[in-house]
Amino acid sequence: MKKFKGYIQVYTGDGKGKTTAAIGLSMRAIGAGLKVAFFQFFKTGSSSEIKILKSFYPQIYYKNFGKKSFIKNQRDEKTQKLILQGWEEVKELVKSKLYNIIILDEITYALNLGIIKLKEFLDLLRNKPQDLEIVITGRSAPQELIEVADLVTEMKKIKHYYEKGIKARKGIEK
Amino acid sequence: MKKFKGYIQVYTGDGKGKTTAAIGLSMRAIGAGLKVAFFQFFKTGSSSEIKILKSFYPQIYYKNFGKKSFIKNQRDEKTQKLILQGWEEVKELVKSKLYNIIILDEITYALNLGIIKLKEFLDLLRNKPQDLEIVITGRSAPQELIEVADLVTEMKKIKHYYEKGIKARKGIEK
Repeated sequence: MKKFKGYIQVYTGDGKGKTTAAIGLSMRAIGAGLKVAFFQFFKTGSSSEIKILKSFYPQIYYKNFGKKSFIKNQRDEKTQKLILQGWEEVKELVKSKLYNIIILDEITYALNLGIIKLKEFLDLLRNKPQDLEIVITGRSAPQELIEVADLVTEMKKIKHYYEKGIKARKGIEK
Repeated sequence: MKKFKGYIQVYTGDGKGKTTAAIGLSMRAIGAGLKVAFFQFFKTGSSSEIKILKSFYPQIYYKNFGKKSFIKNQRDEKTQKLILQGWEEVKELVKSKLYNIIILDEITYALNLGIIKLKEFLDLLRNKPQDLEIVITGRSAPQELIEVADLVTEMKKIKHYYEKGIKARKGIEK
């Protein structure tokens, strides 16, 4: 695997573009011969880009931890179990050194809901292998996470067509 | 080509993630069977993701209008000529109805430098075909553009590792 000096990136905020940027970042990375693990939390893997991400296996290893009814029931037992299963896999991945970049899409929700303990998460980041890049997305990134990160972009909603009543469109939002 | 109701999206601000989001957006779109034209202004097409974008031709039609020394000479004659050539192609593309989505990466620089006239650009947006999505990226989007757009995200730099002296890395920034 390519040698690489890795950092911690965070994409947060209420605007459109966080997961989308993580997808773009994966494309740039594999274009340079890097290997990417892309983990999505609270998502069902039904979004249009997922088949593209999967088509790049094994350069991209994609996995999702979520179920359809997550929005209503994000604290329910089944979801918690799924998220924690994902978190166990993340810890193994970090140790495995199989990937240059690990993307943890929407994991901030798991932190904010207390499903993944913030302290444990920050410890993982602080002790990550030097050659591993970790990319975190999701709204409301905790302040402690922002402090630990090397790069933080806030995707800020200036205007959103949801406000005009426009629903999520296939190929654009999903 | 798939039927589609299109809007105008703008990704602006000083943070990392604008072009990256446009790449991710392209992946989601082609995953849904949509067709994308991806035009980059002031860029040489040497970034790692470009070969991935190009590998999806003809679902993605990629073209760049820039040269290596653009940063120093962005107002010079050769660059202006290239950008205006790109702009002519954009106008043709919009009329062609061959694509569902046209991405105009970094075009805000051409607007702010006055290479492309803002009024002409806004006229194109206001009169775009209903079934065309136009995605615009770049710093300092003019206020009139924000007003015409349906969705605007500001990628705001909260923290950037450039400030620590870390240079652009292959596979991450380029």
